[in-house]
Amino acid sequence: MALTVVGSIAFDSVRTPFGERERMLGGSAVHFALAASFFTEVRVVGPVGDDFGAEHIALLADRGIATEDIEHVPGGDTFFWRGHYDHDMNVAHTDDTRLNVFADFQPKLSASSREAEMLFLGNIQPDLQRGVRRQSAASFAALDSMNLWIETAKDPLLAAIGEVDCLMLNDAELRMLTERPNLVAAAHAAMAFGPGVVVAKRGEYGAALFTDEGAFAIPGLPLEDVRDPTGAGDSFAGGFLGYLDAVRAGGTHDDRTLRQAMAYGSVMASFNVEDFGTERVAGLTDAAIARRLGEFKRLTHFEEAPVVGLARGS
Amino acid sequence: MALTVVGSIAFDSVRTPFGERERMLGGSAVHFALAASFFTEVRVVGPVGDDFGAEHIALLADRGIATEDIEHVPGGDTFFWRGHYDHDMNVAHTDDTRLNVFADFQPKLSASSREAEMLFLGNIQPDLQRGVRRQSAASFAALDSMNLWIETAKDPLLAAIGEVDCLMLNDAELRMLTERPNLVAAAHAAMAFGPGVVVAKRGEYGAALFTDEGAFAIPGLPLEDVRDPTGAGDSFAGGFLGYLDAVRAGGTHDDRTLRQAMAYGSVMASFNVEDFGTERVAGLTDAAIARRLGEFKRLTHFEEAPVVGLARGS
Repeated sequence: MALTVVGSIAFDSVRTPFGERERMLGGSAVHFALAASFFTEVRVVGPVGDDFGAEHIALLADRGIATEDIEHVPGGDTFFWRGHYDHDMNVAHTDDTRLNVFADFQPKLSASSREAEMLFLGNIQPDLQRGVRRQSAASFAALDSMNLWIETAKDPLLAAIGEVDCLMLNDAELRMLTERPNLVAAAHAAMAFGPGVVVAKRGEYGAALFTDEGAFAIPGLPLEDVRDPTGAGDSFAGGFLGYLDAVRAGGTHDDRTLRQAMAYGSVMASFNVEDFGTERVAGLTDAAIARRLGEFKRLTHFEEAPVVGLARGS
Repeated sequence: MALTVVGSIAFDSVRTPFGERERMLGGSAVHFALAASFFTEVRVVGPVGDDFGAEHIALLADRGIATEDIEHVPGGDTFFWRGHYDHDMNVAHTDDTRLNVFADFQPKLSASSREAEMLFLGNIQPDLQRGVRRQSAASFAALDSMNLWIETAKDPLLAAIGEVDCLMLNDAELRMLTERPNLVAAAHAAMAFGPGVVVAKRGEYGAALFTDEGAFAIPGLPLEDVRDPTGAGDSFAGGFLGYLDAVRAGGTHDDRTLRQAMAYGSVMASFNVEDFGTERVAGLTDAAIARRLGEFKRLTHFEEAPVVGLARGS
């Protein structure tokens, strides 16, 4: 089993009501890989510049992540994002974006990365996602995207979506993509583009899963300490796909396994937001992950009470 | 067992992307009472005008709801609300509000309504809510409110909250009331005002429960047909408190029962939004309610997968 992720590797400078940090390791591929590394073998594909040091490689390698496909572009700078969150931590405000080495990124997968049974196409330009999909032999591929590509590259995005098995978007993006205000209708419209699995990410409200077998929804864990939501969606995807790959590499997944994967995705996202950047996820243990899965079970559990309570009615 | 509700009895004219209706029976007390009537004996307290006919009384009485405390104000008109929803059905836009007989409403509870073991204070002016609470012998009282009273009558509202056992608000209102952007902190701050049970209503995202024993959260049922969300919060409250009263009149409730009540509240809210006004809820059967509870169980169920899936880690 192995899981290849293609996406951004970045330095993030982030300010929230709870503090600020300069040039933390971040990016969709990094957040995804760290979360998935607790479940399966992960291979990261993405470009970095001269400012990406051995200590950054080490942070990934220490988690057992394969870093050979991290492409060093001599003379370049790593992708940089500066943003902030106000009291509504569901909304990121971008203050500065410098694509740097990412501007000319042409993903090239090594033989090992091509052969991985699963593939995650992080949020990059849809034509690049299609190029990666063509290189990959994965039997299960998932794709993330964003409003920018829906607005500026909708046709390539729809083509890319048609070539994957799983679409993961924020619920607002899912509605925008399909032009359906109703989430169920939007999810069904998205499935008609090709993917058999659609995941709607809902920020602090959790996530919903749609397949031919119906819907599953899991609320977010109510957390008192939410310090930095950056990367939560990618950590969700990492837990989700990492668990799927651990249980059964590639192929199709039954409803029971997909629900469990949704729970593990929620677990990893809940850790992600508790501290800045990658700090919380990178330092986790299997035991902490198992404990939090139990917290999600307790959060959502109710017994189907008998109808004897019903006193009246027709 | 019996449950008294004090709140608005109204005619609502509503337009949504799925149609419009003129002068439907509505109001917080009506939506609440219809939902609760499937679980327990309900008594409605509220004022109506000359335009409130025998057919409107019959709609309530047919569900076994006690209507003796519906106060007819001769020469007056019933409370009227006109509003619409655009594609974001979570946001109601008010086009017209006429308080009419509600402007001078001074709730007077009959002996039977005073003696009910449970009380729901629908969203009315907080001093009126306090007056009702003083008349009632209920051992468990719950209160709903809205942003208007937080902005214009915060001190009376805080006093009213201090006199009830359960506070039910939208999550945005809970944050506004407590001036805490974090929902967990907001819920704890609200509990410090007095109520041992705090329910955060989250529209299509469901609802969360906070008590000394921790948190419970239930997502909304993903529905393809959402025609009119008016009254969903009151239908939620009706299912929630109606079930609590059916299981154990008044007093305190254990965590297991509160979770089941949250599920029944969600069931009744999900029916409420599927059609305009009271049409869907008024015509329900016990069997339909039991089936939908099963749908919520299937929506939220996942098995706590063993940690054997975890392949790496520390």
